[in-house]
Amino acid sequence: MKFEFYNPTRLIFGAGTLSRLGEAAREHGRKALLVTGGGSVKRTGVFDRAVTSLEKAGVSVVECAGIEPNPRITSVRRGADMARREGCDLVVALGGGSTMDAAKVIAAAVFYEGDPWDMIGHGQENWVLPTRALPIITVPTLAATGSEMNCGAVISNDEVKVKSFVKADCLFPRVALADPELTLTVPRDQTAYGVCDIITHVTEGYFNGVDGTPIQDRFAEGVILTAMEYGRRAVADGGDLEARTQVQWASIVALNGWVQAGVDAVHPVHMIEHALSAHHDVPHGAGLAVVNPAWMRFAAKARPQRFAQFARRVFGLQADGRGDLELAMEGIDRFEAFLRSIGCPTRLSELGIGDELIPRYAEDAALVLRDEHGNLLGRPPMSKADIEAVLRSAL
Amino acid sequence: MKFEFYNPTRLIFGAGTLSRLGEAAREHGRKALLVTGGGSVKRTGVFDRAVTSLEKAGVSVVECAGIEPNPRITSVRRGADMARREGCDLVVALGGGSTMDAAKVIAAAVFYEGDPWDMIGHGQENWVLPTRALPIITVPTLAATGSEMNCGAVISNDEVKVKSFVKADCLFPRVALADPELTLTVPRDQTAYGVCDIITHVTEGYFNGVDGTPIQDRFAEGVILTAMEYGRRAVADGGDLEARTQVQWASIVALNGWVQAGVDAVHPVHMIEHALSAHHDVPHGAGLAVVNPAWMRFAAKARPQRFAQFARRVFGLQADGRGDLELAMEGIDRFEAFLRSIGCPTRLSELGIGDELIPRYAEDAALVLRDEHGNLLGRPPMSKADIEAVLRSAL
Repeated sequence: MKFEFYNPTRLIFGAGTLSRLGEAAREHGRKALLVTGGGSVKRTGVFDRAVTSLEKAGVSVVECAGIEPNPRITSVRRGADMARREGCDLVVALGGGSTMDAAKVIAAAVFYEGDPWDMIGHGQENWVLPTRALPIITVPTLAATGSEMNCGAVISNDEVKVKSFVKADCLFPRVALADPELTLTVPRDQTAYGVCDIITHVTEGYFNGVDGTPIQDRFAEGVILTAMEYGRRAVADGGDLEARTQVQWASIVALNGWVQAGVDAVHPVHMIEHALSAHHDVPHGAGLAVVNPAWMRFAAKARPQRFAQFARRVFGLQADGRGDLELAMEGIDRFEAFLRSIGCPTRLSELGIGDELIPRYAEDAALVLRDEHGNLLGRPPMSKADIEAVLRSAL
Repeated sequence: MKFEFYNPTRLIFGAGTLSRLGEAAREHGRKALLVTGGGSVKRTGVFDRAVTSLEKAGVSVVECAGIEPNPRITSVRRGADMARREGCDLVVALGGGSTMDAAKVIAAAVFYEGDPWDMIGHGQENWVLPTRALPIITVPTLAATGSEMNCGAVISNDEVKVKSFVKADCLFPRVALADPELTLTVPRDQTAYGVCDIITHVTEGYFNGVDGTPIQDRFAEGVILTAMEYGRRAVADGGDLEARTQVQWASIVALNGWVQAGVDAVHPVHMIEHALSAHHDVPHGAGLAVVNPAWMRFAAKARPQRFAQFARRVFGLQADGRGDLELAMEGIDRFEAFLRSIGCPTRLSELGIGDELIPRYAEDAALVLRDEHGNLLGRPPMSKADIEAVLRSAL
């Protein structure tokens, strides 16, 4: 293990903490660009409560509404123009992963004179990583991406049908304010997709990281076990605040770097899913639910021991004389059954996706994180034929 | 769960990373007070390598040597005077927990005009928490206290025989540079005491935290399991770099806040041990090895279910028809047997401590972390009679 770890985000966590937004924001600015999504925060009254808290603390608000799911670079351009025009000195994201990701890139785009798409890795020769951004505060209303406490963002470009990411230290939120009460109204399907997203963040490192990370293995298993137990409860009863609380906490630790420290993870399942949702407006977590088990069955053949450990520690399975691969496959079956049990799709057809564009998805998936042979990084690395085969197995 | 989390320390981890000290320091200052302990860093050549790296990067060095185990406030005063006199703009700690803790308080004392002992909580009316400190860089040479990546420090006052602590945001090191190669020469007994310290950091929160922290439970269990497995190896073969690496990583995550987030832990075992080592110059980890199992047997009676979980998840024990308390007690026996197996003392007599001062230890243990009745905070809170009984059970 040889690595660096850094995460300076201050986390304020717990039911009822939304009322502290103004106080937290006031330490970082006076005029906030308040970035929001499709309108649910207005319907639930959360938007008004956030504005009240901000204004009471002396922070004025300029609203940038309408960030779409799979947020577009066009929204980033619009938000950055607005922040510049209005002289905002702070960006507050109030919404799900899409809203938070857009807000982060907006905060950096304010200081960048070129096209913000330059900052999103898409195979370009000069990837312009941002080094400066307005202070960012995240207020998640959905437990899923973990974007609230990390320095990454995923942005889509509809013109070229590419969905990709940026990671940079300046994108760490100054404050993440996570109030599980805000997630009580998340619909059942979105709740389930969030749970799948959480688990997939952790399985990526668990299955694609380096060897010799015993503590991180245990951390990952702990997040998965908890996300499954409380995720099931949150899907069954959206008003279960204890379940919402544990799922939200799981979503944060699943991708704030704690589970990944030293693991040197890559994210093939995410890369494949991004290729799908660049072309089809499917919820990210639903796409992952289809891709992850299919990918696992492919990867288990190369590393049955690791997947057998997953079967044992997460599902309590015993070998009972079977070999690692057989045990591994039962673990994957159990995982897929869990996803179905909470209402996630596990076939491409359920997402309305056919086989027409499979070669294109395979091409796009390896656009950024690829080795010198053009294979998608992972354990094992995947050729385009491998990616196509995995996707066909999930039709 | 309702909590705040913040830890802005940048961690550079891995074998061979000592060579990056200069580069890391140069970002934070030009003239370093290099704080060291008893001389082992000189004998091993680590001191020279650190100085070379610093000077090569353009950071000049003023040495503050001779920080003792259970570091004294007198050393803090001396270090702060030296840093002021020499105009240091940076403090680098090269050593174990004692050296790092002293260095932290020195860094704050530079800006404090009163006596630095005011900053250490010892029951005084006005506890002066520091708000400003020179930038701190920690380079641990021992895997134990986890001080390298947190904002706490423990300091002893020999005049009044009190050992206590301070925690403040300004004491977070800017950089923790953890190179497991530096721990290869740690003697067997110190290695074992370090392993006990690591495990005890985690058991404190596990047994004294709030209910409803399932992820943190799993994290804690993961740290304990890993510290036991690799700790045993590191004690058996000090040159086992893989074991040293995992133990060092365990020591960092055991007390950088990741395991404690949301747990709202208090530390009765540490408070009792501090009372002992304020009067007797015993290694902190050795004192913990005596106090922790004795405390566990006391606390298990109040919360058998929790200790039964520990027995099941850490030692793989099955109830086999027994009740929780019986299972719990077997888990504690196993834990104590583990400590003995790596060479830790588990009786006060092995530390050369008799029963003469037991009432005084009980008094001192509840000096700072006490409830309104003067009981030592924990689950359950401990009266002075409880503390005395626990200590007598360990004679």
